[in-house]
Amino acid sequence: MTDFYKGLSPVKFEGEQSTNALAYRHYNKDEIVAGKRMEDHIRPAVAYWHSFAAEGGDPFGGRTFDRPWYDKGMDGARMKADVAFETFDMLDVPFFCFHDVDIAPEGDSLAESNKNVREIGEIFAKKMETSRTRLLWGTANLFSNRRYMGGAATNPDPDVFTYAAAQVKNVLELTHELGGENYVLWGGREGYETLLNTKIGQESDQMARFLTLVIEHADKIGFKGQILIEPKPQEPTKHQYDYDVATVYGFLQRYGLEKRVKCNIEVGHAFLAGHSFEHELAVASSLGMLGSVDANRNDLQSGWDTDHFPNNPGEMALAFYYILKQGGLGKGGFNFDAKLRRQSLDPADLLYGHVGGLDVLARGLKAAAAMIEDGEFDRLLDERYAGWQSGEGKAILNGERSLENLAERVERENLQPQPRSGRQEYLENLVNRFV
Amino acid sequence: MTDFYKGLSPVKFEGEQSTNALAYRHYNKDEIVAGKRMEDHIRPAVAYWHSFAAEGGDPFGGRTFDRPWYDKGMDGARMKADVAFETFDMLDVPFFCFHDVDIAPEGDSLAESNKNVREIGEIFAKKMETSRTRLLWGTANLFSNRRYMGGAATNPDPDVFTYAAAQVKNVLELTHELGGENYVLWGGREGYETLLNTKIGQESDQMARFLTLVIEHADKIGFKGQILIEPKPQEPTKHQYDYDVATVYGFLQRYGLEKRVKCNIEVGHAFLAGHSFEHELAVASSLGMLGSVDANRNDLQSGWDTDHFPNNPGEMALAFYYILKQGGLGKGGFNFDAKLRRQSLDPADLLYGHVGGLDVLARGLKAAAAMIEDGEFDRLLDERYAGWQSGEGKAILNGERSLENLAERVERENLQPQPRSGRQEYLENLVNRFV
Amino acid sequence: MTDFYKGLSPVKFEGEQSTNALAYRHYNKDEIVAGKRMEDHIRPAVAYWHSFAAEGGDPFGGRTFDRPWYDKGMDGARMKADVAFETFDMLDVPFFCFHDVDIAPEGDSLAESNKNVREIGEIFAKKMETSRTRLLWGTANLFSNRRYMGGAATNPDPDVFTYAAAQVKNVLELTHELGGENYVLWGGREGYETLLNTKIGQESDQMARFLTLVIEHADKIGFKGQILIEPKPQEPTKHQYDYDVATVYGFLQRYGLEKRVKCNIEVGHAFLAGHSFEHELAVASSLGMLGSVDANRNDLQSGWDTDHFPNNPGEMALAFYYILKQGGLGKGGFNFDAKLRRQSLDPADLLYGHVGGLDVLARGLKAAAAMIEDGEFDRLLDERYAGWQSGEGKAILNGERSLENLAERVERENLQPQPRSGRQEYLENLVNRFV
Amino acid sequence: MTDFYKGLSPVKFEGEQSTNALAYRHYNKDEIVAGKRMEDHIRPAVAYWHSFAAEGGDPFGGRTFDRPWYDKGMDGARMKADVAFETFDMLDVPFFCFHDVDIAPEGDSLAESNKNVREIGEIFAKKMETSRTRLLWGTANLFSNRRYMGGAATNPDPDVFTYAAAQVKNVLELTHELGGENYVLWGGREGYETLLNTKIGQESDQMARFLTLVIEHADKIGFKGQILIEPKPQEPTKHQYDYDVATVYGFLQRYGLEKRVKCNIEVGHAFLAGHSFEHELAVASSLGMLGSVDANRNDLQSGWDTDHFPNNPGEMALAFYYILKQGGLGKGGFNFDAKLRRQSLDPADLLYGHVGGLDVLARGLKAAAAMIEDGEFDRLLDERYAGWQSGEGKAILNGERSLENLAERVERENLQPQPRSGRQEYLENLVNRFV
Ligand SMILES: [Co+2]
Ligand SMILES: [Co+2]
Ligand SMILES: [Co+2]
Ligand SMILES: [Co+2]
Ligand SMILES: [Co+2]
Ligand SMILES: [Co+2]
Ligand SMILES: [Co+2]
Ligand SMILES: [Co+2]
Repeated sequence: MTDFYKGLSPVKFEGEQSTNALAYRHYNKDEIVAGKRMEDHIRPAVAYWHSFAAEGGDPFGGRTFDRPWYDKGMDGARMKADVAFETFDMLDVPFFCFHDVDIAPEGDSLAESNKNVREIGEIFAKKMETSRTRLLWGTANLFSNRRYMGGAATNPDPDVFTYAAAQVKNVLELTHELGGENYVLWGGREGYETLLNTKIGQESDQMARFLTLVIEHADKIGFKGQILIEPKPQEPTKHQYDYDVATVYGFLQRYGLEKRVKCNIEVGHAFLAGHSFEHELAVASSLGMLGSVDANRNDLQSGWDTDHFPNNPGEMALAFYYILKQGGLGKGGFNFDAKLRRQSLDPADLLYGHVGGLDVLARGLKAAAAMIEDGEFDRLLDERYAGWQSGEGKAILNGERSLENLAERVERENLQPQPRSGRQEYLENLVNRFV
Repeated sequence: MTDFYKGLSPVKFEGEQSTNALAYRHYNKDEIVAGKRMEDHIRPAVAYWHSFAAEGGDPFGGRTFDRPWYDKGMDGARMKADVAFETFDMLDVPFFCFHDVDIAPEGDSLAESNKNVREIGEIFAKKMETSRTRLLWGTANLFSNRRYMGGAATNPDPDVFTYAAAQVKNVLELTHELGGENYVLWGGREGYETLLNTKIGQESDQMARFLTLVIEHADKIGFKGQILIEPKPQEPTKHQYDYDVATVYGFLQRYGLEKRVKCNIEVGHAFLAGHSFEHELAVASSLGMLGSVDANRNDLQSGWDTDHFPNNPGEMALAFYYILKQGGLGKGGFNFDAKLRRQSLDPADLLYGHVGGLDVLARGLKAAAAMIEDGEFDRLLDERYAGWQSGEGKAILNGERSLENLAERVERENLQPQPRSGRQEYLENLVNRFV
Repeated sequence: MTDFYKGLSPVKFEGEQSTNALAYRHYNKDEIVAGKRMEDHIRPAVAYWHSFAAEGGDPFGGRTFDRPWYDKGMDGARMKADVAFETFDMLDVPFFCFHDVDIAPEGDSLAESNKNVREIGEIFAKKMETSRTRLLWGTANLFSNRRYMGGAATNPDPDVFTYAAAQVKNVLELTHELGGENYVLWGGREGYETLLNTKIGQESDQMARFLTLVIEHADKIGFKGQILIEPKPQEPTKHQYDYDVATVYGFLQRYGLEKRVKCNIEVGHAFLAGHSFEHELAVASSLGMLGSVDANRNDLQSGWDTDHFPNNPGEMALAFYYILKQGGLGKGGFNFDAKLRRQSLDPADLLYGHVGGLDVLARGLKAAAAMIEDGEFDRLLDERYAGWQSGEGKAILNGERSLENLAERVERENLQPQPRSGRQEYLENLVNRFV
Repeated sequence: MTDFYKGLSPVKFEGEQSTNALAYRHYNKDEIVAGKRMEDHIRPAVAYWHSFAAEGGDPFGGRTFDRPWYDKGMDGARMKADVAFETFDMLDVPFFCFHDVDIAPEGDSLAESNKNVREIGEIFAKKMETSRTRLLWGTANLFSNRRYMGGAATNPDPDVFTYAAAQVKNVLELTHELGGENYVLWGGREGYETLLNTKIGQESDQMARFLTLVIEHADKIGFKGQILIEPKPQEPTKHQYDYDVATVYGFLQRYGLEKRVKCNIEVGHAFLAGHSFEHELAVASSLGMLGSVDANRNDLQSGWDTDHFPNNPGEMALAFYYILKQGGLGKGGFNFDAKLRRQSLDPADLLYGHVGGLDVLARGLKAAAAMIEDGEFDRLLDERYAGWQSGEGKAILNGERSLENLAERVERENLQPQPRSGRQEYLENLVNRFV
């Protein structure tokens, strides 16, 4: 037991009336909502990188946090692991997620780096024997080291592809051994800084090849988890190939991988791509691609990835609506890909971020379940599209009508379709009834 | 001959030293660039809507222009056709494009609307016997009339789908009869205002069905032109399904249509989707989807579709680079989907817009041809990716390596790939050498 | 009594449990919050333009609504006035706002236009004898007619300035006669489309002159209301001079008008200028410039002024926080500058929009009052800046220290200031406790 | 002489036909343009930070560059100074700019930090005896160190204000001693991350106090250079107080400082604030606030400050138009606040960036001078506003007309002002004639 959280008590559910800033007011893990424990709906995870590896820096200034494990090599990595599991306990969350470089320092060769990662992996395995916290997903950081400055899978240099492949092999296997339920690929530098030095067709083929290798290896080692791509439109690159869900879907189909890979959708990345979060969820769900979620939010006025903790219950209500309608996230969950603000220096801040975020998710979940239970929302939606369930509508969709048939009917019936109200204000008010 | 352009002379090429505002300074249609006449590279078209049907209005104010054909029904439509062909002659352009509602007023029924359109179509046919201007593409306006407020193909009401189908049948057939080389679908309201009243999976199926019907009918009537989708991310809708090239490609693949349909890429729509124009061209070209272009530009500080005339030769140089590399636009061309500013009231302004725009295209074309002829740019690009042409790179792409093979090589060779300069500043300077 | 709302009953407060879509669930006008009736805090107003003059059009399509008063000249204007006051009654709101052109059709001369406006003004006066609804503010539309395409006060043609001045005179006097509590200037086309044809220094002087004339006339006729400028960064123009609160403040100071004019802050305009709504309120309040509010919201993904009805209680809580802290809006209020979506065709939709909006304002008000009553928020804020209340901090602010004094103290005390947590996550959670 | 540029020759002007990537093709320092040497118009400066202190890192990855002076303390700082002056020589530029922390490592106390800065300052002074490169401006970095995480002048802790004051004193004095022609304040963290923990009125007073102290000290030590504020809307903070030129102007007036301070306008900051670069220059110039320029550009699709080297001659032509119209920049200049891309690792890349940038500036300057010499542009502008030079227009501006006078004239003359074309397309073509 470290003294990182000295003086602070574990976070418990105390109900809406509580004024204890370190209590859950809405997140009550065992409460049954829509037939399932809240925790089993949300499956919340703490992200190792933002919570334990980040230092409060930004492009205009360095480290502001002051953690006892900084600059201490493998000793630091071990202390960090201790605090990580203490954090999971303090928050009472069932999952965590990590990149290889979050958990252990890089060595002078990949062999040494991998050895370091494995050593901490073993500590995790040990801790997980007694902790109830499991691994939601693992991933390899293929973007921070300067060797990846021009991409990993999409690097012009095949040796970089090779190095990245070897790195993923290690993390994928560790993820599998730790019982991870998903493996995520975020292509942070799979994109371009300038088209002027880029062959996008070539890079697309490289990216598909890389993904195929990962899938084949996952199958080979018996990994049964989901393989997830996390879309993001840009940053750090000017353009990132996994722009949004629709783009990822087109890419996967092109290479015949759309049945094998789903998406991990981050709130802030949806926003940067010009979409609402619920849009990306709805699109992914309609394509069978909604695998997991990175919970956070973007500052509405900032043009970069701010990774704030979520604070808008209304946004989360719409998110959970699509998740509940597809029967939940399955092996996925809600990973807090959210970082403390640069000025949030204190250990307690790390708890506040997660507590507030989890309460917002709980409010969203309860609102979505209530919306669905109420039924009015779904009823209106079905009513609006009822014409397609029978008669001409059905015949059209079934491919039983040609342009000529349709033109003839317009003429014959002198068809003059009359518009009906879309009822947007009514529906917005209806959502607010539950939020 | 109307007196619309009274006192103005036809626009001719006069060379770079000319100070005549109504002369081409760069666009010299018969000049050979990269082995082809300039006109045959650019294939410029005047857009009927912005040039003759628009009125200078915007969301905060009505009509500012004062054209003699306004509010005169079919008489006005005939006068408009006269001025249109006079404009083509004044500008000496080989192509034009139109929507049905641009050329003739809507009637009380689709039958009457179509009859009006056909009557003007016959006037076009007649004029085209003597004019050298041909039809680049036709399209149906499925977004202005209130019946389409909730979409055309994606309307919740199958009757609206039906009406739209009948309307497209008419325009497609007219396009075919006038020798049009392309048929374009821009899904202006195929999208949603609010997800709250929208079933996106359902609407996606409707949209695919509609497109399939159009293709089948095109085949049936022997239309050999390209079928093109024009992507746009939003506006008028909050979200438009044909968001960008990558999204359209995913949609087409999903319904098995990707071999039959290409894209008509508009500069300003690329910008609204968060892309550079050259990005959309490069992506489309790499997917075999680059069919045609809507030439214009967006104001860099405005968040809506401003449809300015193009004025940046550097942007057009990069565009022509991708077009030349794929061997040209084939049946496509450069349609000026550009409108006069609200304050540009005079007939001469209509000429200035096109003259300036065409000169910018010509500068772009010449710059791109010079870049390619110089060869340095392509040489650097090939050099950068040379590693993938042989040895390990080739073996990886050929599927001859597994993660295990790659990991083993990293270990065996203690692989430490060293980054090489991406040379962005050098390449940007190089482009500027030709612009 | 028209039959516009036939079958619908007046909107009453029914409490949070109500499922009546045409009842207030939170807005209870007589409920005392922070010592004052809710209605007296919010002072809600219906906007004549969006509610009665707008037609559902957008840049890609015309009218979708179908109101019985359209295209009926002065008869229509009278019917519109009837429905307007029926709407005020149905919603039970204490205020409305209008532009001259909203209420009466333009004539062939300004004299005739003004006569039309005055005739409807007299109808208003009559109705206000029995209605409890009063005039929050009046304004002149100086942007829709083509004569204003290049600006009104800032037009290159002094005759346009003159015409605009005469138009304002009429509306200002009518506003005064109707007991309006404010007069608003929104400079819709006071800006530029292109700097290339614009002398901004000249136009700035014109704008100041115009504003001065308005103030002088207001004083002359004894108008005691507030004169308000409504900032907006752009749209319809590429750049609008009254960009945001800070810009307006600089402009007013430059011409010595900052004591006489305040701001009317619109949610969506703040967003378009790159600010949060609460930012603009906080800035304005700190400058003594917060006069009134245009309540609405922008779609978060659209780059133009969408004027949705507000639906985010959290946003409104922060707004009311600044309003309550400055002691309320005084003569200002919350004008619903919000329009029905293009597809919201039904009379009931007009009620839904306002009902939902007003409930959101009520929730925001109650949350802000609770935050202030709780006190923790203000206490933390004061604590954070406590160092400036005494000792060195106070001496610095009082001008009692020079750079040399300060540098000497750093050296003498070897000053090493230690950062303290900004507690952002804690504060965000705290706000959510009340929302 | 270090071997940093080994194998590379100094950059000379070789003319437009040159294909030498390390030659100027347009920048010919002694060429007379508009009556002055090109160098004396542009007054280009190399920025110490981006050129010598930056490491190629970004929020998702660390250092990519590999400079021999990294991690070597004061020895490194001395080597860095050597390479800096070699760079100035290689590029043959007349100016440089620096922050204190760029040139020397921070020590354990401010005293030690300042001593380090002074030691390098003495090296500079020595080098400047033989080099022709002078100091355009100096500045203090008040944003990178964690002590400034909550602002410097606007920090809630007066001790941080004090520390910052002492730091500025040192740099201001050094700037003065080195003959610097300007002192710049960029308030990188003078703003807020969240309004929830911020008293903006209080912080505004602090900021004004700080600026006043700087001005007083400048006067005291006899510094005759310009004091400049560099506006930026956000980043690193969510909101920065010096948002744009108009905001800075309002702030300065509020505290009576508008005569004493001008602006240093950065291209990319204008863009982030929603403005074109030429807009900010035109506004500043019209207010007498245009002091100096930070030359760079923003990626058009990125929402953060990318600080690319400039590459658009058309943009720079409009910039120089406003600069030439006000008679030049005086003591200001063009500082390349532009950084190499993360992948631009080679010493040569540093030269390419500046060479390309300077050529673009030279093209812009020549184009602007030609535009002005041609005269058509200014003639059209004057013609457009001619009505304000005499008669009624002049009388209005002179304050000789009231609303009543104006209304009476409208009635008497039945004034019906007719709009005239704004000629935007014509003007855009005209600009392109010179670019
Ligand atoms: Co993420
Ligand atoms: Co993120
Ligand atoms: Co288009
Ligand atoms: Co467009
Ligand atoms: Co408003
Ligand atoms: Co608005
Ligand atoms: Co700068
Ligand atoms: Co910058």
